[in-house]
Amino acid sequence: MPLSAYDKLHALSKKTSLMNAIHSLLDWDQETYMPHDAIELRSMQIEEIAHLVHKEKTSTRFVKALGALIDIETGSIVDPNLTQEQVAALQRWRRDYIQAVKLPNSFVKLFAKTTSSASHAWKTAKEHNDFRAFAPHMEKVVSLSRKKADILGFKEHPYDALLDLYEPEMKTHFLTPLFSKLKLFLTQLLKDIEVKPPFPDTFLHQYCPNHQQIAFSHQLLHAMGFHPSTSRLDLSAHPFCTGMQPKDTRMTTKIHPENILFCVGAVLHEGGHGLYNMHLPFKHYGSPLAEQVSLGIDESQSRFWETLIGQSYPFWQHFFPLLQKGFPEQFGSVPLQDFYHAVNAVKPGFIRIDSDEVSYNLHVILRFEIEKALIEGSMKVKEIPDVWNSKMREYLGLSPEFDGQGCLQDIHWALGYIGYFPTYTLGNLYAVQFFDTFQKTHPHWKEAAARGSFEEIRLWLKENIHQYGRQFLPNELCQKITGRALSEEPYIHYLTEKYKNLYKI
Amino acid sequence: MPLSAYDKLHALSKKTSLMNAIHSLLDWDQETYMPHDAIELRSMQIEEIAHLVHKEKTSTRFVKALGALIDIETGSIVDPNLTQEQVAALQRWRRDYIQAVKLPNSFVKLFAKTTSSASHAWKTAKEHNDFRAFAPHMEKVVSLSRKKADILGFKEHPYDALLDLYEPEMKTHFLTPLFSKLKLFLTQLLKDIEVKPPFPDTFLHQYCPNHQQIAFSHQLLHAMGFHPSTSRLDLSAHPFCTGMQPKDTRMTTKIHPENILFCVGAVLHEGGHGLYNMHLPFKHYGSPLAEQVSLGIDESQSRFWETLIGQSYPFWQHFFPLLQKGFPEQFGSVPLQDFYHAVNAVKPGFIRIDSDEVSYNLHVILRFEIEKALIEGSMKVKEIPDVWNSKMREYLGLSPEFDGQGCLQDIHWALGYIGYFPTYTLGNLYAVQFFDTFQKTHPHWKEAAARGSFEEIRLWLKENIHQYGRQFLPNELCQKITGRALSEEPYIHYLTEKYKNLYKI
Repeated sequence: MPLSAYDKLHALSKKTSLMNAIHSLLDWDQETYMPHDAIELRSMQIEEIAHLVHKEKTSTRFVKALGALIDIETGSIVDPNLTQEQVAALQRWRRDYIQAVKLPNSFVKLFAKTTSSASHAWKTAKEHNDFRAFAPHMEKVVSLSRKKADILGFKEHPYDALLDLYEPEMKTHFLTPLFSKLKLFLTQLLKDIEVKPPFPDTFLHQYCPNHQQIAFSHQLLHAMGFHPSTSRLDLSAHPFCTGMQPKDTRMTTKIHPENILFCVGAVLHEGGHGLYNMHLPFKHYGSPLAEQVSLGIDESQSRFWETLIGQSYPFWQHFFPLLQKGFPEQFGSVPLQDFYHAVNAVKPGFIRIDSDEVSYNLHVILRFEIEKALIEGSMKVKEIPDVWNSKMREYLGLSPEFDGQGCLQDIHWALGYIGYFPTYTLGNLYAVQFFDTFQKTHPHWKEAAARGSFEEIRLWLKENIHQYGRQFLPNELCQKITGRALSEEPYIHYLTEKYKNLYKI
Repeated sequence: MPLSAYDKLHALSKKTSLMNAIHSLLDWDQETYMPHDAIELRSMQIEEIAHLVHKEKTSTRFVKALGALIDIETGSIVDPNLTQEQVAALQRWRRDYIQAVKLPNSFVKLFAKTTSSASHAWKTAKEHNDFRAFAPHMEKVVSLSRKKADILGFKEHPYDALLDLYEPEMKTHFLTPLFSKLKLFLTQLLKDIEVKPPFPDTFLHQYCPNHQQIAFSHQLLHAMGFHPSTSRLDLSAHPFCTGMQPKDTRMTTKIHPENILFCVGAVLHEGGHGLYNMHLPFKHYGSPLAEQVSLGIDESQSRFWETLIGQSYPFWQHFFPLLQKGFPEQFGSVPLQDFYHAVNAVKPGFIRIDSDEVSYNLHVILRFEIEKALIEGSMKVKEIPDVWNSKMREYLGLSPEFDGQGCLQDIHWALGYIGYFPTYTLGNLYAVQFFDTFQKTHPHWKEAAARGSFEEIRLWLKENIHQYGRQFLPNELCQKITGRALSEEPYIHYLTEKYKNLYKI
């Protein structure tokens, strides 16, 4: 039987996916096992692969195969006999293709070169707490990012073009009021909590040997549904998850010997990303139907497990006795209730990645406000430290003492990832909105979790989100699952209930 | 300054090397860390990379760049101003190019398909000790290999064309008498040893925990000159060494908890390959001047360390006390002399890879004789088991009881590696011939080794072999270093001295 036009396109696209998976392996190896001095040629290997992927994605044979099924200009479908999911796949392929050819090669190279030196400069500047040394690089990144937005095109706001790269169809006019309402609520909640006595948590900072933390991590991954025949856990300087294909999910964690919760949080977080990858439909591998919807939806999966499940009482009803068994000296005499409180202690700090559920989104909103202003030109790069510090005081009541603790803490801007930060908060909002729907149809999940069964959670996420790949746009998926568009309300409701209860407000 | 024609060619060739290094990483990962079920897409990733490498090596732009410097038809050099090493590099590039285009794509694909099913069939046949089930596959492999020889071309013997793939310029008419003389000597030496009382060696088969074997392995690699910033050691089912580039050498070993010498031998063997890779000149990376001369020369490096150094008395003068320190219960009361004897015990067995220094080459010669006969058509595939078993009786005095212990033990033929086996024995011969020269100029190496210093050995190999890459052909290199062509005499002399002494013959 000859291949259909769709199958031909799928086969071509699969080549790109295979090459992307190779790219992922090169990255993964670099962060886990590669000997340090191999970096120079590793960078060249990665450049070579990236070049080949771009060539393949924009090749004449690919555009011919795509054009035979969907009109690339107008987006109208040529063959009326395609299934609904095939039509969706074609729309995503078209979107990716248009985006891939919009940016001229010379611009892509200049952007890569600029962000590469900016990243190097950022590292040194962070070490020396010297934003001024980084500022000229940041100016170039902002100016090129604005140019990128102009090339990609936008209707209302230049920041839309950048947002769209990470969260398709997301708009600044939607985010701005959403984040404002959230900010109002969060700053008030923080104030309400601040006056309450803090939870004791010194027991969290006891020495727990590395190999035992790893052993506990494997218990967590096992409970989430991972199997060593299709996944693995390694160590790296920063935890991450690389999904090379549904049957090859690689997660990493980092061990802080005197803070076991860091590792637990990282494993659950990366595990959430990992399950998404593991559940993508293998038969569609190589097409958008086996890809994640967006960064925001992907982040909703990691935060679902890290916070909604991993910081819940039922979760620790099951896992705290196991933790006590693994670390009897450290936790044997700690009551579950105290441990649960300590896990959820609200303690505003300077560093985004160390922050609690309540402060976290304020860190993100601050970054969003700054980068939006930079892109629209209403703020200058040199103003960043002052604006950052005054926002920190306003939102979190903290004054950073040096730039490494303030505006130099994240690498994102140096890498040119402007428009990326909002997806962290979108992930939190999606997660809670999905969670509400899940809880309605699965009222007994808490009893199951307390018994150590997380299977219905995993399967619900698989059936409602993962199995569709990129068939739906983020807002379509949200509507389909929850019956409404994304909103801050479920999230505000969730935090209100949880923390009023915890802190007796 | 514009790039010279040579630099342009080098830059193009470097792309191929980068891709080959990626191919190596895919292989390495598959054997070390890849989750089991990822194999299906991993094979497709490897196929894709191999396809791209072949395309690049035979591309119009490459052949143009090469043709601008050397006449591809005649081999005459176009530019008289090139250095001697550049001329050598051009000759190697030309050789590789001619070889790469000789075999039609359709043949390469058929060969790959045939050996892929043959390898699968071999696994099952070996499990069931059923050569008959493997025979039809082996017939196809032999017939295609003969066809390959015909396409590649040869002057005297079809086997020459296959040999040449692994050991450039090696000829059947040279090997046949060489191996005959060696066989005569080895069978007689075995008979002389057989009548002597065996060395006690039960102490070698004591339980040594995995992590302690690994720790001892790292001591060995450190003494050889390895550093973690450019190399690593991992575990795999079969030990191997992957040199992805001079600054990224990856060796693996396997732990038999009750046979620590297996791990020691594997680490020294792979370490020998590893040093060769580590010492290839980085500035020439991407050209033949940063590649190994041949499989035989590469094997001479691994056997140099595994046998000539690693089974020598001075080596164990230094390392046996360290072994005793690491494993006091197992070796604390064993005298060094007894340990040294046990390390060198001659015990003919059925399995090539487990065999001692004296029997080893008889295993290789047996395979050479069979594959040569198959290729010239003087023997049929179905005769293999009988011929194998009768040769085993004749050379080693052993009768295999089943095919897994006999003609089905190696995967090489199933993979289509006909012409490969002789390089194992060539490696042993080169190693000893090099060793003789080394000993003449470094008469005090034994005292240094006994003190734990192996630096002059490493540097001698680097300066005399590794630093040249593929600048010389195997026979040229042998002549240059030792002042004579490869011969069996040094090897016979070495074994005679060593084993007459050990066994008091």
